[in-house]
Amino acid sequence: MKPTSKNIPLKNTSVSGGFWHKRQELNRNVTIHAVYDRFKETGRFDAFKLEWKEGDDEKLKPHIFWDSDVAKWIEGAAYIISKNPDPALEKIIDETVDLIEKGRWDDGYFNIYYTLMEPDNRFTDRWNHELYCAGHLIEAAVAYFNATGKDKFLKLMCDYADMIEKAFVTDKWPKFTSPGHEEIELALVKLYHATGEKRYLDLSRHFIDVRGVNDDLDYMQSHKPVREQEEAVGHCVRAVYLYSAMADLAAETGDKSLFDAADKLFDSLAKKKMYVTGGLGQTCVGEAFLSEYDLPETSAYCETCAAIGYIMFANRMSAINPNRKYDDAAELALYNGFLCGVSLDGKSFFYDNSIEVDLIGVHSPKDGRHNPFAPITQRVEVFDCSCCPPNVTRLIADIGEYSCSANDSTIWLHQFIAGEFEQDGKKITVETLYPENGKIKITAEGNFTLALRLPAWCKNYILSGGKNTKLQSDGFIYVDVADGEVLEYGLDMPVRFVQANPKVRQCCGRLCVQRGPLVYCAEGVDNPTPLRGLFVDPTAGGKLNKNEELNFWEIELDGFVQPESDELYYDYDSALVPQKIKLIPYYAYANRGETDMLIWLSRK
Amino acid sequence: MKPTSKNIPLKNTSVSGGFWHKRQELNRNVTIHAVYDRFKETGRFDAFKLEWKEGDDEKLKPHIFWDSDVAKWIEGAAYIISKNPDPALEKIIDETVDLIEKGRWDDGYFNIYYTLMEPDNRFTDRWNHELYCAGHLIEAAVAYFNATGKDKFLKLMCDYADMIEKAFVTDKWPKFTSPGHEEIELALVKLYHATGEKRYLDLSRHFIDVRGVNDDLDYMQSHKPVREQEEAVGHCVRAVYLYSAMADLAAETGDKSLFDAADKLFDSLAKKKMYVTGGLGQTCVGEAFLSEYDLPETSAYCETCAAIGYIMFANRMSAINPNRKYDDAAELALYNGFLCGVSLDGKSFFYDNSIEVDLIGVHSPKDGRHNPFAPITQRVEVFDCSCCPPNVTRLIADIGEYSCSANDSTIWLHQFIAGEFEQDGKKITVETLYPENGKIKITAEGNFTLALRLPAWCKNYILSGGKNTKLQSDGFIYVDVADGEVLEYGLDMPVRFVQANPKVRQCCGRLCVQRGPLVYCAEGVDNPTPLRGLFVDPTAGGKLNKNEELNFWEIELDGFVQPESDELYYDYDSALVPQKIKLIPYYAYANRGETDMLIWLSRK
Repeated sequence: MKPTSKNIPLKNTSVSGGFWHKRQELNRNVTIHAVYDRFKETGRFDAFKLEWKEGDDEKLKPHIFWDSDVAKWIEGAAYIISKNPDPALEKIIDETVDLIEKGRWDDGYFNIYYTLMEPDNRFTDRWNHELYCAGHLIEAAVAYFNATGKDKFLKLMCDYADMIEKAFVTDKWPKFTSPGHEEIELALVKLYHATGEKRYLDLSRHFIDVRGVNDDLDYMQSHKPVREQEEAVGHCVRAVYLYSAMADLAAETGDKSLFDAADKLFDSLAKKKMYVTGGLGQTCVGEAFLSEYDLPETSAYCETCAAIGYIMFANRMSAINPNRKYDDAAELALYNGFLCGVSLDGKSFFYDNSIEVDLIGVHSPKDGRHNPFAPITQRVEVFDCSCCPPNVTRLIADIGEYSCSANDSTIWLHQFIAGEFEQDGKKITVETLYPENGKIKITAEGNFTLALRLPAWCKNYILSGGKNTKLQSDGFIYVDVADGEVLEYGLDMPVRFVQANPKVRQCCGRLCVQRGPLVYCAEGVDNPTPLRGLFVDPTAGGKLNKNEELNFWEIELDGFVQPESDELYYDYDSALVPQKIKLIPYYAYANRGETDMLIWLSRK
Repeated sequence: MKPTSKNIPLKNTSVSGGFWHKRQELNRNVTIHAVYDRFKETGRFDAFKLEWKEGDDEKLKPHIFWDSDVAKWIEGAAYIISKNPDPALEKIIDETVDLIEKGRWDDGYFNIYYTLMEPDNRFTDRWNHELYCAGHLIEAAVAYFNATGKDKFLKLMCDYADMIEKAFVTDKWPKFTSPGHEEIELALVKLYHATGEKRYLDLSRHFIDVRGVNDDLDYMQSHKPVREQEEAVGHCVRAVYLYSAMADLAAETGDKSLFDAADKLFDSLAKKKMYVTGGLGQTCVGEAFLSEYDLPETSAYCETCAAIGYIMFANRMSAINPNRKYDDAAELALYNGFLCGVSLDGKSFFYDNSIEVDLIGVHSPKDGRHNPFAPITQRVEVFDCSCCPPNVTRLIADIGEYSCSANDSTIWLHQFIAGEFEQDGKKITVETLYPENGKIKITAEGNFTLALRLPAWCKNYILSGGKNTKLQSDGFIYVDVADGEVLEYGLDMPVRFVQANPKVRQCCGRLCVQRGPLVYCAEGVDNPTPLRGLFVDPTAGGKLNKNEELNFWEIELDGFVQPESDELYYDYDSALVPQKIKLIPYYAYANRGETDMLIWLSRK
């Protein structure tokens, strides 16, 4: 099979004037520096000097995944630099690259932890993230090369990849055959793109092909060969990085069996294991998936990185075989499960994203300590395992790449991101405040077919301009546009009441309020608690009020509240009392102090 | 304060002709023997020979609480013997008592585990259940003495109690000051009643008074002095045994501060921590309480022994200060959370009693193994920690004692158990099929005041006969009866729809169907699954159908079902489809194979 389209790469995009431009400005002005500061003070950057030794401050002792934290920061900074040159950021990266050059092994290997702590044990412990770190360093090097044209980092990483190929493919001396934490597979495809060297693509395919052949660990998706996997299992971030690489390889090699397996795994996620926010990961125990349809709320996991990997995966799939099912899922995760991961001021982060917060039981009544099994209630600036903050940074900086794909004849508009997107003489300029409203103005340059996603949540739309308009079964509206033509695409965006499949025992019978791609939630700071005592009437609709301070639309519902009682159980008497209910976008929750939060509201 | 009444003791009661008589016959003919067989084959009886040594079968290695398992069995057998003499049961008990006599220490001490495994470490490890085992042996000895008049066992236990008193009160050499698992406190009050020796009452009070003074373990309710405790915390069975002893001591000593503390703790249970079945224990982690109002369903714990202890506690409280709040709670636990603990054939048992079973996720899709965090789905005949089966046996055999309390002028009818109950020239004969229906016929012998509990769930009743009838604020109807008078007490028992306090996030907005004291549930074997997809209409009422085979009333509801969907989330369209819903009493669930079960049904 041949991929239908390819994503329009970052360099051919320019995000401007809309929701994501604001986010990118915050990312560039605040977040990238906040994360740098935290990483600097926790020793992550200095760790590249390879100077830490036993007896030094234990807090600064390099962890097995510190390389990847900094690598993701570099990748994000590179995306920023590519659009807004920034000598200060470049200096940080160049210095770090110099340290990598200085510290790498003669054979090209680089890893802070193993070099310092266990130099004799390279590639002996599959659990220790070596290839994961290598993968992120490779991604960073490719991004920096694309941003600046500087190839020193890229060459270092080519040497490292060559060393890995020799070890795993030629000499076969490592104690394991495929990565314990997937990531390098998709990075090698990027390295192939940056260098044109097919051996990196082959090495990626090698890691995919040997996975699950001689081992049996469903925690790391190696319980069976990847082409035979049908259910998403194990550690969530590992899973979505693997699936993204499967999609990449299917696109490059035309391997239909790989695409079909990835498609089944996508359905396993989107139809059986995904929270209504697009979040993935049902339990913090192993940061993992649970059974199909088992989606607990107060103990949900939903790591920000898992949402990011899910967006990466879905976006890749829809370029290969455009279908709104992928883009709807990516959009859901983007505006909710992912965006919730960073505070409105851009400085703090959720590692796991709660689906419900009930402060009852969160803190020990004895000493106020946070109950380890209770939901996280507040974003923090840094954590021991700080994979998410730089991952947030790189996705926001790279968001332009997630908007469009193209082939010779067509541009697909997957995500409604304001900006300019160009490929091979075809260009669209998208003007929109989406998701604030559903008005999308598109100006075409060149003559081509434009494919506009019609989100499944949208039941009414208008489209003016273009010719031969037809809605296809893939969920895209195909319309022929002429050079200079302006299209007005309008998605009706009413307040919607969404229910869950009855197999989801946790929220069956309750309702999630949504508008466009945004999931809404009730916060205790705005509503009487317990929030479960609020009841919504789906026939009553909702009213929009602009919150100017926090810059989003609130939804006001004419709802009801179950009166307080001194009793634990009592006869049902339908005595609900009218109560205004105020909802805010889920991504904005927990920005006004610790408070209850609920997505799935009781239905009157 | 002086206790208002005292329970009419077992010897003055005779259960006949109703629901509990059938249960007692099953208990006498099947359960007591089934438990004996399992205990015999697992080595629990032979352990009293004190012959096990290292190198012998590890499976037969005595556990720290085996003494108590057999002691509870003896206690239950003694209650049975007291009503139905049984030489075979007596022989088993006598032989066991002989072994205790032979195996006890010169100072009176007896404990299988410590004698065999750690003879030098007596009373050094508070966690090792020594005093708990002693308590159950004392209870067994008292029961056997009351049943047969044989005092050998009783004397052995007096010696043991004397040894404990010397150790803990006089010599103070043990490494802890109060029991790690409460139980002996209430046993010592029974020993005081059987012997008239006040020193046993004093020893009980000693253990209560020193508890929580110099330690800080809320797991075993010793985080503060018991009179200062207001919230039920820690291990559930420990808690309710402690609270029962607090009630006993308050009754004996008139200690109002102890009664008031027990009353607060009762409210903590009944108003904030009790499942709708009367089950206690919100998590299997530590078999413990969680926060107030946090009542998870599929991970509920609800140990059968905790329900038993709760019934014991509530029953004691209502004798001291009659109030239907205690008896309603005891009744709820009795007919639901407790009775569920034994199968309809009397042979198998639940240790923990699930509140909801969703077979999704119960078994590993890989190898079918039971997920350790999934609800228990089937009763079993024996388990490593087999405290519950003999505890079930002893409560059923002793149930007559839970029916009435009396003082000079009045008999209180707390539980509607068919039989005869007599105290000091006052006697009532209760004829009823309760809870099959609400008709209760009471014949009086003697002239006295009869106090009939009006359950809070009963909104309409009739009462014919008697004089000066008045309903008091304690929830009892007081009526003066004359010798030979017959009262007809009729409790209206419609199908009721019960809701939870909105603070209980897990079931807020859903409904529990009840009739009289019985909680009903839907089973997958009777209804389409997922059961959460069923919706009930509280305005539609319910129809009763007799299940002749299993001998209970089923409830048929004109309900609805949310249609199956291939999607995980979709717009609410109110498209519920009419669906008959069949409910059975909760106590009868899981008697027809492994299947889904749900108590809290969605509301239309």
